[in-house]
Amino acid sequence: MKNINMIPAIPGTVGAIMSRQPLELSPRMRAREALARLRQVGVPQDFMSSCYVVDEEGRLLGALTLYELVAAPDCARLDQAMSAPRAVLTPEYDQEEAVRLMEAADCVELPVVDDEGKLVGTVTAEDAMEVLRDEATEDMERMAAILPSERPYLKTSVWEIYKKRVLWLLLLMVSAAFTGAIITHYETALAAQVVLTAFIPMLMDTGGNCGSQSSVTIIRGLSLGEIGYGDWWKVAWKEIQVGVLCGITLAAVNLLRLTVLDHLDLIVAIVVSLTLVVTVIVSKLLGCFLPILASRAHLDPAVMASPLITTIADGISLMVYFRIAVLLLRI
Amino acid sequence: MKNINMIPAIPGTVGAIMSRQPLELSPRMRAREALARLRQVGVPQDFMSSCYVVDEEGRLLGALTLYELVAAPDCARLDQAMSAPRAVLTPEYDQEEAVRLMEAADCVELPVVDDEGKLVGTVTAEDAMEVLRDEATEDMERMAAILPSERPYLKTSVWEIYKKRVLWLLLLMVSAAFTGAIITHYETALAAQVVLTAFIPMLMDTGGNCGSQSSVTIIRGLSLGEIGYGDWWKVAWKEIQVGVLCGITLAAVNLLRLTVLDHLDLIVAIVVSLTLVVTVIVSKLLGCFLPILASRAHLDPAVMASPLITTIADGISLMVYFRIAVLLLRI
Repeated sequence: MKNINMIPAIPGTVGAIMSRQPLELSPRMRAREALARLRQVGVPQDFMSSCYVVDEEGRLLGALTLYELVAAPDCARLDQAMSAPRAVLTPEYDQEEAVRLMEAADCVELPVVDDEGKLVGTVTAEDAMEVLRDEATEDMERMAAILPSERPYLKTSVWEIYKKRVLWLLLLMVSAAFTGAIITHYETALAAQVVLTAFIPMLMDTGGNCGSQSSVTIIRGLSLGEIGYGDWWKVAWKEIQVGVLCGITLAAVNLLRLTVLDHLDLIVAIVVSLTLVVTVIVSKLLGCFLPILASRAHLDPAVMASPLITTIADGISLMVYFRIAVLLLRI
Repeated sequence: MKNINMIPAIPGTVGAIMSRQPLELSPRMRAREALARLRQVGVPQDFMSSCYVVDEEGRLLGALTLYELVAAPDCARLDQAMSAPRAVLTPEYDQEEAVRLMEAADCVELPVVDDEGKLVGTVTAEDAMEVLRDEATEDMERMAAILPSERPYLKTSVWEIYKKRVLWLLLLMVSAAFTGAIITHYETALAAQVVLTAFIPMLMDTGGNCGSQSSVTIIRGLSLGEIGYGDWWKVAWKEIQVGVLCGITLAAVNLLRLTVLDHLDLIVAIVVSLTLVVTVIVSKLLGCFLPILASRAHLDPAVMASPLITTIADGISLMVYFRIAVLLLRI
């Protein structure tokens, strides 16, 4: 192991989590000698399940799980018993990517090498579990418009929590001003038909919910590697279809409720229901496009989750609502 | 291993994910014999890192990691070399709890025993990683008001996606009717001051965002075991403080904007800003109480996330808004 302390541990990279003392063995060793070496070194602190074969310069040649080493014939030479590592990481590698690679390679430990191919550490399943947990927490926080925090909730000060939350709240509040501007623009129409106001919350909430359903699905799919940028048209087509189905269902239920239960004016009920269809489809499309675009721009797609999409969807659905209202109600 | 096929694999429990062929050794074996036995059996399919010592009836006595076995002196007896397992699972155990226990016990594999203490399987780090990933996905889906699905997005049919999403959308749409009812109730006040309508989206969105910030934080804390039911008053007190800070900040910025930039009537600006403070605090409290109550009622706290809280917060903030408006504007 050379220069391990010279490798910078950038947060979020493999360098920051890797175990720095993998067991190194030489290619010409016999299995028996290797086991003797293991005993000499003793049980490592981290849960390592593999040992690594390196050349004289410390360059990684191959790996054996401990199980494979034990099962190998006593006099088998390591360079014959070993297999090529299924995947290799570098210290600069993104942690989340590393875990995804580990799962794709179907193994529980991956070696880390430097630019010269020298073994500098390993990422174990234990490390991977921590990464999975932390990344999921971070994504959820981003989705809820909170700046990610490192410490457990009960150990974080009020001031700290405040700072993590208030920025997004301010930003979203100010951007909601444009929704207000739309309403102000149609103030005369609203004054003529105050009943229209009663449906603003329902339309806004439904748009927000549809958008967050799509965005969370897509964000998670991107983060699990199930969806890539190249799939955008497949995703969009799927979301359009789901949007049409959901929109028609909601509009039908809504139309029935407003006319049969609430005895509302049919034209008003139609205005609300038509707006619902458009809102649902638009929100679902926003919910899939924004995260994909964000990932394309190398931003974390999770920031494109519900709150931001809600704000945009609100504006669009209100605009559609008033347009349709003005058209059909002749106000 | 006895009767392993008789153990039902209930989805979500340890029984459904455990590896069913852990290596069993007898307590009077020597380390050398154990290693010979390992070779005989060959490399297992799953990534197991431990072997288990069981009595003649198959009851678990202790465990050794493979590393410990290799490091033990050749003639060490297993019942002396082994250590008591750090934690033991049963097949009925919840998967998420099992992973939490694994992390608490700081190990990468846990044995599973039946009612009689007989070893029936192990949960490995590989299984745990899958559980972590799936549970996080499920939580995110619940938070976004989607019924959890098993299959990757691109492989799920439109109809399937539709069914997972439309139920919650319908439920939330119908419950938004009560928000509409509040508006209808104050229709005359609104007709007198149409300008009030312009702030409905901003107030609703801010309430929703505040609620989802708190609920997601608390849901994640509950799911990571960082927060328990007994902490409810600590959580509530923290959220009140954060709520007051956030509320005042937002209200101040809003008041400035409305009076200085928009030259709005001061009283109207005060009505909006006061409502903001109340909305933020109420939403934050809802966001922490509902998930805690859900977890107390043995429901998944994740269903109490943003969409449901948004709907409730909407109603409350509108009620507060109109009350304050009627009071201060004498309409």
